[in-house]
Amino acid sequence: MAVGNAHFPDMPRIEGLRLGTARAGIKKPDRRDLVIFELTEGSHVAATFTRNAFCAAPVHVARRHLADGAPRYLLINTGNANAGTGEQGMKDALACCAALAERTGQLPEQVLPFSTGVIGEPLPVERIRGGLDEALSSLDDGQWQAAAEGIMTTDTRPKGATRTITIEGQPVTINGISKGAGMICPNMATMLAFVATDAAIRHDTLQTLLRDSVNRSFNRITIDSDTSTNDACTLVATGRGAALESDEALAQFAEALDDVLLTLAQAIVRDGEGATKFVTVTIEEAASDEEALAVAFSVAHSPLVKTALYASDANWGRLLMAVGKVPISDFDVSQVAIDINGVIIARQGGRAQEYREEAGAAVMAEEEINITIHLGRGTAQEQVWTSDLSHDYVSINADYRS
Amino acid sequence: MAVGNAHFPDMPRIEGLRLGTARAGIKKPDRRDLVIFELTEGSHVAATFTRNAFCAAPVHVARRHLADGAPRYLLINTGNANAGTGEQGMKDALACCAALAERTGQLPEQVLPFSTGVIGEPLPVERIRGGLDEALSSLDDGQWQAAAEGIMTTDTRPKGATRTITIEGQPVTINGISKGAGMICPNMATMLAFVATDAAIRHDTLQTLLRDSVNRSFNRITIDSDTSTNDACTLVATGRGAALESDEALAQFAEALDDVLLTLAQAIVRDGEGATKFVTVTIEEAASDEEALAVAFSVAHSPLVKTALYASDANWGRLLMAVGKVPISDFDVSQVAIDINGVIIARQGGRAQEYREEAGAAVMAEEEINITIHLGRGTAQEQVWTSDLSHDYVSINADYRS
Repeated sequence: MAVGNAHFPDMPRIEGLRLGTARAGIKKPDRRDLVIFELTEGSHVAATFTRNAFCAAPVHVARRHLADGAPRYLLINTGNANAGTGEQGMKDALACCAALAERTGQLPEQVLPFSTGVIGEPLPVERIRGGLDEALSSLDDGQWQAAAEGIMTTDTRPKGATRTITIEGQPVTINGISKGAGMICPNMATMLAFVATDAAIRHDTLQTLLRDSVNRSFNRITIDSDTSTNDACTLVATGRGAALESDEALAQFAEALDDVLLTLAQAIVRDGEGATKFVTVTIEEAASDEEALAVAFSVAHSPLVKTALYASDANWGRLLMAVGKVPISDFDVSQVAIDINGVIIARQGGRAQEYREEAGAAVMAEEEINITIHLGRGTAQEQVWTSDLSHDYVSINADYRS
Repeated sequence: MAVGNAHFPDMPRIEGLRLGTARAGIKKPDRRDLVIFELTEGSHVAATFTRNAFCAAPVHVARRHLADGAPRYLLINTGNANAGTGEQGMKDALACCAALAERTGQLPEQVLPFSTGVIGEPLPVERIRGGLDEALSSLDDGQWQAAAEGIMTTDTRPKGATRTITIEGQPVTINGISKGAGMICPNMATMLAFVATDAAIRHDTLQTLLRDSVNRSFNRITIDSDTSTNDACTLVATGRGAALESDEALAQFAEALDDVLLTLAQAIVRDGEGATKFVTVTIEEAASDEEALAVAFSVAHSPLVKTALYASDANWGRLLMAVGKVPISDFDVSQVAIDINGVIIARQGGRAQEYREEAGAAVMAEEEINITIHLGRGTAQEQVWTSDLSHDYVSINADYRS
């Protein structure tokens, strides 16, 4: 299941970047499961990774290779997360980097590995090695949709976003793809997202831009409150296009980057495991940003709120419960107000006098639900995005060994 | 669904305490939904209540009446939580207390009200008033099972526990009943539990005994991580039996009280909404109690761990994920080891060499699952109890307006 229709956008080429894919038979036969990004010399790469303490072997290796600088390839497989695999997992990730480096005349340190799929199984290195030639021979600058398909796990559709803007008279393009549908409560990054631009941006600036934008997008979504061991988001700047240096140019770029990342993050929620609703939770009038975010995630994580959403039930009692369970000192609950899709449901901590069940039922029947909760404590505001909890979520996760 | 068979124990009488029930038609016709506890003069009552900021009107009223001292009646209804009901909810709770006080010649402040059921609907005061005579006329000291049935909501079976011990040569009895199957992650108390003893214990001592025992039982269970607005646990000491004053006598009492409360708390988990497994999560070798508890609840709350339990899948990768998502500084994950029902599954942060899937599958097929996770960081230990996440949990909460 997934919320609404989605079409994969037409992605313009990014000068200095090519993509290749292969069917390597990593977990299932005959599906794209291996993706290569080839970056032109001089590209800068910024990245954010999961904060889960059990981060996967490829996360360790990618972080180390990134510190060595000068990455020329991203090597991504689906079907196996190479997580919880100990020393052997590290060797396996390095072996894949070495195999690609050997075929392309680069150093192993110039390859960043990424894996997603089942946790705790040994990485099938031979199959990945066996797919490299096919992936390399397919390298092309128009393969974005094939790449987005090649990184899917329980996703039902490929996810992409693109923006082309004009900065200081020159066109700048940002393309991105993402995957993820469960184990989604990113902490620093999402399952996997790969974003690229043709702009030339200093490496430290690029890292700051990515960190801030991830914080406004992937770090504001949750499907099931569980943080993956393999989350990673990378931003490549090939430098073949406009050089961005002025504060104004970078601000324009940041705005477009936010737009791309938020589109990719929301696409993950819309394709959340078993999702039938796309839900925006907005907390207003909080005493601090931290408080607003804590309340927003309490609502977005609550199994009882999420099953009510699945049932299209305007169950504001469960919303009050989820707000109230956050430990907040001196909380005067008589100031709390709630609307759903513009219908005033609760005022002064209880049911609004003018509220009628029929009005609540009508808005809850929609696929896109906006829940706005006013805490009456200050001026801070936060927003997070989530999906509902359906029978299909249970079926998918009881059947799938992630 | 519920885990295992349960029979309601034979409950001895508690001298100085009588129970009455009625079918008041609060939400459904023809089911017991009103319960009265009558306490002899001089009884002491200790209680713990929910820490949810949106605590229900009866919680406010019961807390206030308890402070006034000298309670003689507990008045409990199911079918309506009288939560999120604002000023009218307070008036309604007080009106019910006044009605019972009038019929029994007591003051309204001597009645403690408790409600459970749907949040946000006005309390049907007339129906409760209408049931009082039936409940009063049925007062008897042998009605424990009827009372346990009268406080059920989505529970599939009544829950009771009893212990009789000999302290300083005199028999002391502790009886308790509880209810709850969803919105269970108590913070200071559970949905509803009523415990009584014939012992004579000072009021301040009774409150300390209850607080400590609740912390070792109800505050260690979770079904869905959601904290109810109506949680309450009361402990009545009628004082008609042995007077307990010495440290040794009180320690013996505390041990039996722990036993009763833990039995009641675990009965709630076994009857968790949609539960097919009863799961004990033990964290060992943590650096502190707080750390052990945070990891234990992270595992017990994780939807991906809970769906794997439902599927009887020894998915240790999800266990690592749930451990790793807790923010712990300087965490050397290579020290982590996991067993399930005695089968060694993970060692040194990854799959144990000797582990075979068949052994994991065999133990996961059992109804009672013990997950033990060693963090290798210290000597602190904590234990929590939870259930799995099944299709029935979703069905129950998508259909039921709580």
